[in-house]
Amino acid sequence: MSAAAGAVLDTRNGQAARREHILDAAEACFVRNGFHRTTMQDLAREASMSPGNIYRYFDSKEAVVLGLAERDRERGAVLVEAMERAGDKRAVLMGVLARFFFEITREAAILRLDVWAEASRNPAIGAMVERGDEEGRTWLIAMFDAIKTSPECDPAALFDAVAPLMKGIIVSRALAPDYDAGPAVAQLQAMIDAGLSGALPLPHLDLETGR
Amino acid sequence: MSAAAGAVLDTRNGQAARREHILDAAEACFVRNGFHRTTMQDLAREASMSPGNIYRYFDSKEAVVLGLAERDRERGAVLVEAMERAGDKRAVLMGVLARFFFEITREAAILRLDVWAEASRNPAIGAMVERGDEEGRTWLIAMFDAIKTSPECDPAALFDAVAPLMKGIIVSRALAPDYDAGPAVAQLQAMIDAGLSGALPLPHLDLETGR
Repeated sequence: MSAAAGAVLDTRNGQAARREHILDAAEACFVRNGFHRTTMQDLAREASMSPGNIYRYFDSKEAVVLGLAERDRERGAVLVEAMERAGDKRAVLMGVLARFFFEITREAAILRLDVWAEASRNPAIGAMVERGDEEGRTWLIAMFDAIKTSPECDPAALFDAVAPLMKGIIVSRALAPDYDAGPAVAQLQAMIDAGLSGALPLPHLDLETGR
Repeated sequence: MSAAAGAVLDTRNGQAARREHILDAAEACFVRNGFHRTTMQDLAREASMSPGNIYRYFDSKEAVVLGLAERDRERGAVLVEAMERAGDKRAVLMGVLARFFFEITREAAILRLDVWAEASRNPAIGAMVERGDEEGRTWLIAMFDAIKTSPECDPAALFDAVAPLMKGIIVSRALAPDYDAGPAVAQLQAMIDAGLSGALPLPHLDLETGR
């Protein structure tokens, strides 16, 4: 590589690292004070950068939130890639779900609640949340379809049955400092396992009487 | 009733009605603009009252949020009372769950997300959320215990298995304007039904491998 090309690459890496650094600082600010109370000035202080410098990377607070969401999606894509290379897709799916819900920090879960609430008020954030949800849905349904153990398994219906549970685990993680995701994750895995063999969703009762 | 007693009662009813009116206005403001962006001035404008008049009822924005939460709890208590008077507790439990999740508006669900996110930052709101959750937990576990159909049913474990699902239905309601809670509520009822006969929570798999 020429010295010039190396310098360009260093600059690119430097810019990417600076972006990461700003996103880390933003995450810390948003969690501590909430999205609305955080200003670009707070963010600059947390990142030890000048506000002008921050604006070279993100032109608004909203752009920072979208950047955080994009980073989440990229991290998810890395997990997915690892899974798709693996031989035993089912074991990897179960392992990835466990890792995701055990490793999500309370801070990240709180930020997710903020973003969900904001999605209804801010169309750009709403579209981003919808896109992320739709990608996750498409991918999980395809995965269920690939590893189902019975023709009775309806991958889309299985997804609908477990999706609220996954969102609820994130809420629970945000609410309690000492939350143990173990029982809920084990239940999620067992539900997916039952669903792959066609035993879930359970047949519906009458909504009014529950019979 | 004496005229004086009647006047006292009218004043009381008037004050209660005024409080309700302020809470309705607050709900509209919080949903539209979020908790943080709403000021007591906005609230006064929405309620068509002077800010000074609002402060006679609530001394801070936080007090308004606590008032909203208290109203939610009271509404829940009315449902619970209706249930406890009914003969067939099981049918009423199922019907009340269905009604709650079908009738919760998107606005109320979004507000709940805001309150959950704020719970981690504001100790008064955190304590209120925790108290509400604990009351719901205690009551549902007692209800499961009263109507279980098998000694194999572990009411506390059943609650832990379905609690995240209930939170997740609220998140889903907040996210999509056209959300249909039907499938998730039917699944919740079927899970409770299975749990009452001891079939839920499902036996846990190995968290890492999912076998």
